[in-house]
Amino acid sequence: MMDLEFIQNQVLMILTRVKNQLRQDPSFETVQTKSNRNDLVTNRDQGIERQIVDFLREKFPTARIISEESWHQQVNDSRGLIFLVDPIDGTMNFVKCRDQFASMIGVYVNGIPLFGAIVDVMQNQVYYGGPQMGAFCDQQPLAGLPDPSLAQSLVTIGQHLLIDPQAPYWPLIRQSSGLRVYGSAGIVWTRLLQGKQQIYISQLQPWDLAAGRAIAAALGIVVRAIDAHPLNMLKSQLVIIGTKCATTEALKVISRAQEL
Amino acid sequence: MMDLEFIQNQVLMILTRVKNQLRQDPSFETVQTKSNRNDLVTNRDQGIERQIVDFLREKFPTARIISEESWHQQVNDSRGLIFLVDPIDGTMNFVKCRDQFASMIGVYVNGIPLFGAIVDVMQNQVYYGGPQMGAFCDQQPLAGLPDPSLAQSLVTIGQHLLIDPQAPYWPLIRQSSGLRVYGSAGIVWTRLLQGKQQIYISQLQPWDLAAGRAIAAALGIVVRAIDAHPLNMLKSQLVIIGTKCATTEALKVISRAQEL
Repeated sequence: MMDLEFIQNQVLMILTRVKNQLRQDPSFETVQTKSNRNDLVTNRDQGIERQIVDFLREKFPTARIISEESWHQQVNDSRGLIFLVDPIDGTMNFVKCRDQFASMIGVYVNGIPLFGAIVDVMQNQVYYGGPQMGAFCDQQPLAGLPDPSLAQSLVTIGQHLLIDPQAPYWPLIRQSSGLRVYGSAGIVWTRLLQGKQQIYISQLQPWDLAAGRAIAAALGIVVRAIDAHPLNMLKSQLVIIGTKCATTEALKVISRAQEL
Repeated sequence: MMDLEFIQNQVLMILTRVKNQLRQDPSFETVQTKSNRNDLVTNRDQGIERQIVDFLREKFPTARIISEESWHQQVNDSRGLIFLVDPIDGTMNFVKCRDQFASMIGVYVNGIPLFGAIVDVMQNQVYYGGPQMGAFCDQQPLAGLPDPSLAQSLVTIGQHLLIDPQAPYWPLIRQSSGLRVYGSAGIVWTRLLQGKQQIYISQLQPWDLAAGRAIAAALGIVVRAIDAHPLNMLKSQLVIIGTKCATTEALKVISRAQEL
């Protein structure tokens, strides 16, 4: 059950299938709002989630599954094998742009990241890896990442955090090389993994965090809760993700800004 | 000299050449700062500018050329045929990510847009068109754009405008479908032209504006100075670019926010 190669093969098989379906037909019939008017779910999010969950249930009958659109299947502890599934991350982009959205699966054992995979659907790219196996894009190992200063780093801050003018993130942006906002955690993860940006701060759900965190571990990318509590893969939390130097500097800038 | 087909062929020829060179070798040797530490120029910006300007001078000996890296070649009036050239738009992205940068040429006659072309280098796509000829991507006509409300629109605001917490743009972002920030005017133009986003507000230089404005005219995209002065293709200005309904609503939101 915990055979890493089998897990990797199954996760990549279902995500590749989903990617190809979405590329062939990136349309949807219904779109509904969830927590707010910009938090969307389409029939495709739901259908793809069902497809992934059914597949994983068949292959891993004793595992538990946490997935975005059916969070009501409560998982209250981290024991054993858990799959965290985001069928379409960046649903607003899927609906409005038909690009810059991702599908993600993270695999954890007793709360420890084992494996993750992220597909950038419209770029037709599959990122995957884990702490023991390294990080890959389409079978090619991802290059080791440089460790630039904050001044040399591109940063993404979740837009719900930016919209507060009192937010302590503006001094950080001013000290960086610039802000980028893509509207999909999965897309930001792919850019972090490729060294195309260095910092990501956002309030993230377990399924936004799980796959990227597992792959990032192989590249030395730091992932931590911003209030310094240990990460909890069962709840939403404010996290900072980034290369080492830039993350250390960013946390200092935020902490100074919060003192003022 | 003003033969549109000849102009189109020459502009597309040199931009395609530049695109292929940059795709084959997206490297640079030197990088310098200009107006501030995040305003970059590399030897590639300079070399490509020289290549484009030399080409246009040979093909259009009596035309005048305004280009990003040699703005000191002052053009003080809009008479006759003018080419506006941005060799690499999004130099920070070129330097840090090797993607999401563009090359652009706009062609104006007596201040009126005639033709524009934008190449998204790493996506290998050429957008071009003008008020008389329509708008195209890689020889295919671009589809007519829907005209959604602001609430249904994705918006980009230049980050230098966002960094001011007093800026009147936050109410606008809150009323939209969300903020996107890409770090390249050219990339935002390609997304507007495809209907992937609806509003763009930024302080733009003539070479950031020229090509996109000419193509956008064919799709009914509004381009206006935000202080209501007529657009001036010889100076930097604060502009709003967007589909009709969303632009009208956005201007109302900004004007209300400025009154408070």
